Amino acid sequence: MNSKSRSRAYALLAATVGTIAAMPVGEVFADAHEKYEAAFNSDGELIRPAGWREWVFVGSPLTPNSLNGGAAPFPEFHSVYIDPKSWAHYKKTGTFREGTMFAKELTLVGDTAATSGVGFFNGDLQGFEIAHKDSKRYTEETGGWAYYSFGHQPEPYNSSAAAMPTAACAACHTAAAAEDMVFTQYYPILGAAKGAGDAGAGVGGEE
Amino acid sequence: MNSKSRSRAYALLAATVGTIAAMPVGEVFADAHEKYEAAFNSDGELIRPAGWREWVFVGSPLTPNSLNGGAAPFPEFHSVYIDPKSWAHYKKTGTFREGTMFAKELTLVGDTAATSGVGFFNGDLQGFEIAHKDSKRYTEETGGWAYYSFGHQPEPYNSSAAAMPTAACAACHTAAAAEDMVFTQYYPILGAAKGAGDAGAGVGGEE
Repeated sequence: MNSKSRSRAYALLAATVGTIAAMPVGEVFADAHEKYEAAFNSDGELIRPAGWREWVFVGSPLTPNSLNGGAAPFPEFHSVYIDPKSWAHYKKTGTFREGTMFAKELTLVGDTAATSGVGFFNGDLQGFEIAHKDSKRYTEETGGWAYYSFGHQPEPYNSSAAAMPTAACAACHTAAAAEDMVFTQYYPILGAAKGAGDAGAGVGGEE
Repeated sequence: MNSKSRSRAYALLAATVGTIAAMPVGEVFADAHEKYEAAFNSDGELIRPAGWREWVFVGSPLTPNSLNGGAAPFPEFHSVYIDPKSWAHYKKTGTFREGTMFAKELTLVGDTAATSGVGFFNGDLQGFEIAHKDSKRYTEETGGWAYYSFGHQPEPYNSSAAAMPTAACAACHTAAAAEDMVFTQYYPILGAAKGAGDAGAGVGGEE
């Protein structure tokens, strides 16, 4: 490497370090996964993102079969996550950025009694879904969001998925979701984080 | 800056970039928070860690009052997280490292019916607890773990907490937890992640 190209390499290195140091946590994490932006295959199907269990959990609604005449539309635990890049944006601005993805992993109701009492305990993993916001890609009819199911089955989930019909998902979100097609009324963590900055992730105690 | 000191600076810069590039995701995230190791105040109380909502969610057991004669010992949703450093270790080794922390944030049961059916939806935030593994600090009687409650109330939670008596927490964990004082039988995400490497975080689809 000659002196000039070495100088260029050092300048690039310095810029890289500066960029990394300046990035908020969400961005560093995002970069490591490189899966926080939706990706589509040649058929226009959303490719299942990787690493969603390291996204930020927002809530766990449950409408079990036992309370719905044995035929609940959604009998599983819903473990709902927001991608870290959009979480960082929501903490900062209180809005869902274009590109926001919510992941919903399903688990069957497993045990219904334990030493802690009668109730519901997560059983086997049973499916995976994504909600994705892209006002240019999706129509006003769905509020600029689309909903994808990668199967209601144990892993492996389907590799890619086509958007669900409006009636299957968007209709209920349009009718009942509190904020921008998202059921924020059931996600107190989003309520605490909305525009709250780093405090939204949980404030630490002082020595 | 003279030529020699510039060379040293570049060498340090290169070493820094190399270190960052070589760090697994959990480590990068951990470094950013600097709160993944338990810290204690001068009274020996555990200081409430910051940023637990960005830790890794593992499960959401629920034993509501409505199914326990109106007097459930644990009536709230339990949102249970493992700290990212220990999650990375568990993905790699399938064991809970010394220093592992589980966070448990409580939310009241809010709505019990929605467009999706009858059930349970997260209401207001209502408390925060930590389980911490340290075989040297804690006795065999508690299996090398201790349990801390930062209050059953809305935020702000208590700034620090003393370890709970053995009978209050450790006794049930000793009697019923499947693995190393942790109720892994109710956390299918830990089951999927145990020794599974990055696949434990959720495998992405292929183009």
